[in-house]
Amino acid sequence: MKGSRGMDIVKPKILPGFMELLPHDQILFNSMCDKIRSVYERFGFLPLDTPTIEYSEVLLAKAGGETEKQIYSFTKGDNDLSLRFDLTVPLARYVSQRYQDLSFPFKRYQIGKVFRGERPQKGRFREFYQCDIDVIGNETLDIIYDAEMPAIIYNVFKELDIGKFTIKINNRKILNGFFENIGLLDKVTDILRIIDKLDKIGKESVKDELLKLGTSVESVDKILEFILISGTNSEKIENLKKLQINNITYLNGITELEQVLSYLRSFGLEEDYYKIDLTIARGLDYYTGTVYETNLDEYPKLGSICSGGRYDNLTGYYTKQKLVGVGVSIGLTRLFSKLLEEKIILPNTRSTAKVLVIPMDRVNMEYSLKIASMLRKNNINTDVYYLDKSIKQKFKYADKIGFKFVIVVGEEEENTNTLVLKDMAEGRQETINLDIKEIMKHLI
Amino acid sequence: MKGSRGMDIVKPKILPGFMELLPHDQILFNSMCDKIRSVYERFGFLPLDTPTIEYSEVLLAKAGGETEKQIYSFTKGDNDLSLRFDLTVPLARYVSQRYQDLSFPFKRYQIGKVFRGERPQKGRFREFYQCDIDVIGNETLDIIYDAEMPAIIYNVFKELDIGKFTIKINNRKILNGFFENIGLLDKVTDILRIIDKLDKIGKESVKDELLKLGTSVESVDKILEFILISGTNSEKIENLKKLQINNITYLNGITELEQVLSYLRSFGLEEDYYKIDLTIARGLDYYTGTVYETNLDEYPKLGSICSGGRYDNLTGYYTKQKLVGVGVSIGLTRLFSKLLEEKIILPNTRSTAKVLVIPMDRVNMEYSLKIASMLRKNNINTDVYYLDKSIKQKFKYADKIGFKFVIVVGEEEENTNTLVLKDMAEGRQETINLDIKEIMKHLI
Repeated sequence: MKGSRGMDIVKPKILPGFMELLPHDQILFNSMCDKIRSVYERFGFLPLDTPTIEYSEVLLAKAGGETEKQIYSFTKGDNDLSLRFDLTVPLARYVSQRYQDLSFPFKRYQIGKVFRGERPQKGRFREFYQCDIDVIGNETLDIIYDAEMPAIIYNVFKELDIGKFTIKINNRKILNGFFENIGLLDKVTDILRIIDKLDKIGKESVKDELLKLGTSVESVDKILEFILISGTNSEKIENLKKLQINNITYLNGITELEQVLSYLRSFGLEEDYYKIDLTIARGLDYYTGTVYETNLDEYPKLGSICSGGRYDNLTGYYTKQKLVGVGVSIGLTRLFSKLLEEKIILPNTRSTAKVLVIPMDRVNMEYSLKIASMLRKNNINTDVYYLDKSIKQKFKYADKIGFKFVIVVGEEEENTNTLVLKDMAEGRQETINLDIKEIMKHLI
Repeated sequence: MKGSRGMDIVKPKILPGFMELLPHDQILFNSMCDKIRSVYERFGFLPLDTPTIEYSEVLLAKAGGETEKQIYSFTKGDNDLSLRFDLTVPLARYVSQRYQDLSFPFKRYQIGKVFRGERPQKGRFREFYQCDIDVIGNETLDIIYDAEMPAIIYNVFKELDIGKFTIKINNRKILNGFFENIGLLDKVTDILRIIDKLDKIGKESVKDELLKLGTSVESVDKILEFILISGTNSEKIENLKKLQINNITYLNGITELEQVLSYLRSFGLEEDYYKIDLTIARGLDYYTGTVYETNLDEYPKLGSICSGGRYDNLTGYYTKQKLVGVGVSIGLTRLFSKLLEEKIILPNTRSTAKVLVIPMDRVNMEYSLKIASMLRKNNINTDVYYLDKSIKQKFKYADKIGFKFVIVVGEEEENTNTLVLKDMAEGRQETINLDIKEIMKHLI
């Protein structure tokens, strides 16, 4: 087929696994992004924007196995390059490289695209936004930052207004200490991986898998007794203590968890928005203390919509400085796509602009531009319809783009210094004077 | 060397030609980006976010020569992929692909990173932000959109407040018609390339180069007479008419330019912020009508900081639909780096957060958190200093991060329900009651 330039046409398409939205959905996506950013800034986090492309040797210093297979790598000139696959590795590289220029604790947020060349499946993206916050401490970092994270998550999801959610909190020291105590520390990675599936596969299957691992029946019972501890947060803490496990790591973990819970009350979080969940483990070789997951109560299938935790050594691959931290991440592309799919958020029909000015005729253009300038000076996003079309077509455009108000001006309005303002949702219209105060009153 | 994990250390570094900022500069960069976005939205443009990675055959449908060499291309699985090198090609692909779902005129903005693997030199970036707006018309697009572009540029740079600027406007039809008339249309590409250098190399060198091209002395004189037409905008139009060039393209070009200038007055632009410049040609095989460049009056060496123009056929490679448009682009990374270098903008020393709350002692933490929550609820970005350090060190941190205000609370303040508020720039401090209205009054 030939295109309008007489050239062969290339079919316009994008790769599977890449999200590209129509304008109205993009407006919705951006508004979520803006809200997340504004909460991050409200808690004093500083922005960061690292390169999309980095040296492979730097970016992959730690990677291996599954992660490395997913990475987009290529050469350019003599350099082996990779696209960033998360925002944590670039952060580690950044704080190591800029150590002298930063003040600690360094609180940074980064919202940006990351890339993973996985086999695309429903709900999985190869290019997606992560919205990360981390607090990096020099050598040490107070436990109160572990409580600040859920406080921020709480404010973010309150602001996003996507339904009741629960922040699940655990501490890796409790897990490690417990397994050390029952002599299974060498199997902790495998055991935690199985426990992590409790919600998905159920208690009996977890039991089976643990037994298959070579765990004794007695240990499996102990593990399940521990993991299934129930009650309020305070009761869980009490029950953990009652297990009489004489292990320093375990006891430290309980102390940290108690402190986090205590601070959470000071941060003003509603009690039913967070709870201890002993099955939460997260990235198994990465986190060392507090860990978090967040679920929408009514949509457990969505899985965790915001996760993270405390790590004792962020930058071991890049520097001798000991930098510790705590952080969480929201995978916004996946979250957004799921929210739309599950109709938790409704498609947006509104434009970025509130008002469309329609001149009846070309001669009314100057008067229309004058009105538009007045509105823009008052920070009202305003568009003007410039094409010579029928009034019906002009209103059809207004409707499709989704302006809240339409202002129509013709000869009569121009002669009398007035305008016709129509509220598109309510259908009512009235003639008002060309007076910015009067117009503004009607636009609210 | 061994890192803190006992592993070999990888030197943390990034590729040359990639801009990565320290937090304070990033805040400044973001604020410029936000201002550009807000002006784009104020004129009713809709957001778009296309993938960073696309099929090479789609992205490079048009490219060739120099452009193609600069592109980051690689394979993943069976696919030939490329990173986007501008935002115009993805827009062309997008409107072709989503034609049925869009309403025309389609006004879109996109702010995002693009990638060009050029040899890095000072002021050149391999990864940089472009901030683009385009209006796409279905078959046709009214000339008034050609005037809306300078109106938006004007508002953007007024908002950015980086000094007096001039938007230079020309029309490719005037150029093409003129050269057709003197029988040099076949050489127009070469001639325009030489003329484009007039500002850089001067009149005599342009003359020499034109003669070397095989242009007759008579034609060279005619070309220079034409190019160097002077006077006010109206005088230039009159002088262009006086050249008595009987060529329909030339005359159409003049008419279009006159219309654009006439509408610019309606848009409320100050006269000395725009002017006709017959040497402006822009992308030689791309633009077909109005073209723009923008310069900072006091920093001509920076070159054009915002350019663009009208194109008659955006999507010939992707569809039989005839889509026309007009647009401009700001290369923000380069602009930002130059503005800092030339000290046109000063380094920022302020944080995203306005207030730091400092508890004198750990026991004052809860009271501090209460104050921070109050402020955040009133949309004041607030941080709390959680570390057990000396008061001197706490203030040093406040100073380095750049909080405008510090609130200090100790036993006395907690007992009397007060706080000490210090204005960091002015140095003065006072004790005020824990009353949000009173606090807010002091923070303005």
